[in-house]
Amino acid sequence: MTTVGVGDFISAESHIVCGVCDLCRTGNGHICRNTRIIGVDRDGCWADYIAIPATNAWVNPPEMPVDFAVLQENLGNAVHTAFAADLRAKKVLVTGCGPVGLMTIAVAKAIGARSIYATDISAYRLNIAQRVGADIICNARTDNVSEVIREATRGEGVDVLLEMSGAPAAIRQGFDLLKYGGSAALLGLPNAPFEFDLANLVIFKGATIYGIIGRRLWETWYQMRGLLRSQAIDLKPIVTHHYALDEFEKAVSTMASGESGKVVMRP
Amino acid sequence: MTTVGVGDFISAESHIVCGVCDLCRTGNGHICRNTRIIGVDRDGCWADYIAIPATNAWVNPPEMPVDFAVLQENLGNAVHTAFAADLRAKKVLVTGCGPVGLMTIAVAKAIGARSIYATDISAYRLNIAQRVGADIICNARTDNVSEVIREATRGEGVDVLLEMSGAPAAIRQGFDLLKYGGSAALLGLPNAPFEFDLANLVIFKGATIYGIIGRRLWETWYQMRGLLRSQAIDLKPIVTHHYALDEFEKAVSTMASGESGKVVMRP
Amino acid sequence: MTTVGVGDFISAESHIVCGVCDLCRTGNGHICRNTRIIGVDRDGCWADYIAIPATNAWVNPPEMPVDFAVLQENLGNAVHTAFAADLRAKKVLVTGCGPVGLMTIAVAKAIGARSIYATDISAYRLNIAQRVGADIICNARTDNVSEVIREATRGEGVDVLLEMSGAPAAIRQGFDLLKYGGSAALLGLPNAPFEFDLANLVIFKGATIYGIIGRRLWETWYQMRGLLRSQAIDLKPIVTHHYALDEFEKAVSTMASGESGKVVMRP
Amino acid sequence: MTTVGVGDFISAESHIVCGVCDLCRTGNGHICRNTRIIGVDRDGCWADYIAIPATNAWVNPPEMPVDFAVLQENLGNAVHTAFAADLRAKKVLVTGCGPVGLMTIAVAKAIGARSIYATDISAYRLNIAQRVGADIICNARTDNVSEVIREATRGEGVDVLLEMSGAPAAIRQGFDLLKYGGSAALLGLPNAPFEFDLANLVIFKGATIYGIIGRRLWETWYQMRGLLRSQAIDLKPIVTHHYALDEFEKAVSTMASGESGKVVMRP
Repeated sequence: MTTVGVGDFISAESHIVCGVCDLCRTGNGHICRNTRIIGVDRDGCWADYIAIPATNAWVNPPEMPVDFAVLQENLGNAVHTAFAADLRAKKVLVTGCGPVGLMTIAVAKAIGARSIYATDISAYRLNIAQRVGADIICNARTDNVSEVIREATRGEGVDVLLEMSGAPAAIRQGFDLLKYGGSAALLGLPNAPFEFDLANLVIFKGATIYGIIGRRLWETWYQMRGLLRSQAIDLKPIVTHHYALDEFEKAVSTMASGESGKVVMRP
Repeated sequence: MTTVGVGDFISAESHIVCGVCDLCRTGNGHICRNTRIIGVDRDGCWADYIAIPATNAWVNPPEMPVDFAVLQENLGNAVHTAFAADLRAKKVLVTGCGPVGLMTIAVAKAIGARSIYATDISAYRLNIAQRVGADIICNARTDNVSEVIREATRGEGVDVLLEMSGAPAAIRQGFDLLKYGGSAALLGLPNAPFEFDLANLVIFKGATIYGIIGRRLWETWYQMRGLLRSQAIDLKPIVTHHYALDEFEKAVSTMASGESGKVVMRP
Repeated sequence: MTTVGVGDFISAESHIVCGVCDLCRTGNGHICRNTRIIGVDRDGCWADYIAIPATNAWVNPPEMPVDFAVLQENLGNAVHTAFAADLRAKKVLVTGCGPVGLMTIAVAKAIGARSIYATDISAYRLNIAQRVGADIICNARTDNVSEVIREATRGEGVDVLLEMSGAPAAIRQGFDLLKYGGSAALLGLPNAPFEFDLANLVIFKGATIYGIIGRRLWETWYQMRGLLRSQAIDLKPIVTHHYALDEFEKAVSTMASGESGKVVMRP
Repeated sequence: MTTVGVGDFISAESHIVCGVCDLCRTGNGHICRNTRIIGVDRDGCWADYIAIPATNAWVNPPEMPVDFAVLQENLGNAVHTAFAADLRAKKVLVTGCGPVGLMTIAVAKAIGARSIYATDISAYRLNIAQRVGADIICNARTDNVSEVIREATRGEGVDVLLEMSGAPAAIRQGFDLLKYGGSAALLGLPNAPFEFDLANLVIFKGATIYGIIGRRLWETWYQMRGLLRSQAIDLKPIVTHHYALDEFEKAVSTMASGESGKVVMRP
């Protein structure tokens, strides 16, 4: 039995999982013990053709813009992160406004965050953050983030931290600004171990932390489909550049510049 | 220690609870064993003056329109109901579009429902339902509700039922349209016991049901405040009539007519 | 990739599911839209041989007694029911002491119920109930269940109802004895719709209801394995009769008599 | 209205909270913004007499042994920690076997942990750990903890970590042994910030972390009462020493020695 047919317009979930390990069998396929990732463990996007299992092909509606079809894995990271904590009517801090951070802001807005504070070190990205739903933006290089957010929250701090940067300074600051009893979903990956004040930033606060990796198979994809169909999120401001496939050098350097949202390449 | 001062603009929570019973002490004050309700167990709105405990006075921002300040208990019912189940990116059926049902639609929209289907027997109310966020409205008297909603959901039914009518026919139909594994929050109060097919409508479906009463003390009020501050819900279309206090007979008959949303009376 | 080999000692999960529908793909395989059940939709235990998918074969440790290996589907129903609500340190009422009800008592005890009250109409089964963990047993035919349980709970009622009988009278009484804010997991299947007082028994109480069907694939099986390995549950008193396969008439009439626990037949 | 009378035998909850802040009003009184702690912010156990609010006096049954009455705050920490994650039928690692760690083991056993692995650096305490429910004990000074626990879990690691030591090495090792998708409740307080590999130990694992502080007011006390009434936990092996109040120097040095469980002092 399959849900995909010849000629369907699909997006790929890049994690190919075994389906039989204890994690796959208990709703945790996204952290399957035997995961093989397209483009990492097997041929990926630089290959001329790739074969994937039918179950990894997510059928899109034919009318979906290609720009959105290609960014669903990223959007899935954003949905997985924003859905991990309860954001409804809450004050939310998003640290890091790369493409996934920006999508996270849009998702948080769509599912009822009361206010969204966004930080980054790129003015370009903070500008997009504002367009997709951030109420207050702070440049961690030039603004006093702590002061701005404490004032905006009457000294209470935020209810929820969505950490999308992986930068130790942002992680520490995010937890410092987190309210007692708050929760944090962490997707950004620090490069290395770093000094962290577990006692004051987590334990005394009675905080809850969710480590986020990949997309839940397949809850996240259904949630994503629901958000896209309801047109509750606007991804257009996030896709900032388009390149042809043979312009990949230019594309990659644009991505690295900090002066871009999502960069889309087309064959 | 108190949070309210002389001259504050407040709304009242009508459930005065004991604070010391097992339910109060475990986060279930809304179902306190010793609840006394303003207007039921002690003087209420028809009295010239009433005294309430400071803890029951919820301080509003001075700029809040009186129309919204007076309907916060109703809005709290709506928030309690809509927040009980996970609506995010889900298909939601709201059965019953009285004032609380209408507010529930607005809240469900604000917290990320993918699509909202609303039923009632009053065309007047269904019209408001559409203005506050319902994607599809069905008149249970004149439309084939079941057919409309099955078609809209490709035969799958809805993920979540929010039952605001108390009508046995609506309850049965709501559960019939509920997807396997779905959840239902029930606020509407049936007048009397009625025949219910627990096996097919609940057990075989693996459904979850939440009985909803009052407002959670005080999570619901904080959630409500968050929604109002974010301006994510528009209550204006729901307040349809204003009367002076001595026009109460006219006000009550308007409420009973089905041709009204929320009716506000002012001294 | 498979987890089962030739010669393994296995138990079967009788629900053969599609793996590709929305329910299977979101952790709800137990209510898959395309389920085919061994012995219902395809050959079952009265067949000489049956073939099942490898994924439906649950590998047991070789030393597991056959008596326990054969009753794992039933035990899975019990685990699914007892794990649905939070029983830890709570007062629990189990209505119905057929084999699955008895296992539910054993499971509830193992996961920390404070006290377990069991009802049935068979003195034989109530006797076993006591041996596997019930603190108080009540014969619904001869005892005043309501009085006994109200007294045992100081008038408060129980925190959790596990309904295993499907009898309308037991369901009504169970909900009547349920505390405000309590939760109920329903596995017993009523034969037909019946009069139910949703307002007083569910909504005013702020109760939560879980409809339980089958076993979660495969969380329930892992939970079951954990309980069996820890030797936290004693199933021996529940297996009361053994028959050879060709004594099936005697076996079936024993099951129907109410004077049995689990009846095991061996080829 | 009060629940305590003259002559009642009570235990004290040492956190005196305001009852009106946002945290108190939303079920998070244990992290109240205005907490004043008996013995820290106001007179405590070295005073001749202290006054506490009636709400902080938890009425014990008259027959409760004094030894258990005095350790309920500690037991409450243990209950809060063990109840934070879902332990049912799971493999649990408890790092740190001081008095609260030992109680945590007893509680974890009572609420259905499949197997409990305990680590400490005191052979004396590990011996008690075994008596109250640990299946495997490891001396972090002399055993290869990692090897022992990996072997006991067939290389998979544990489902749940309960961190009761505050020692950076134990915290790192605990997370290293945590299964993908596992959860960790942290009560032990590290003295200072330390290097922590958030990427590999939390994010990639999709782990969930609960910071635990104090006792939930008053869920934890009700859960504790339930466990004590059901006699599901045996605290006797944990109370190892008794002293008169004027032997406090000896008592304190016994506590510091690592060669004790809970030390009880009597006036």
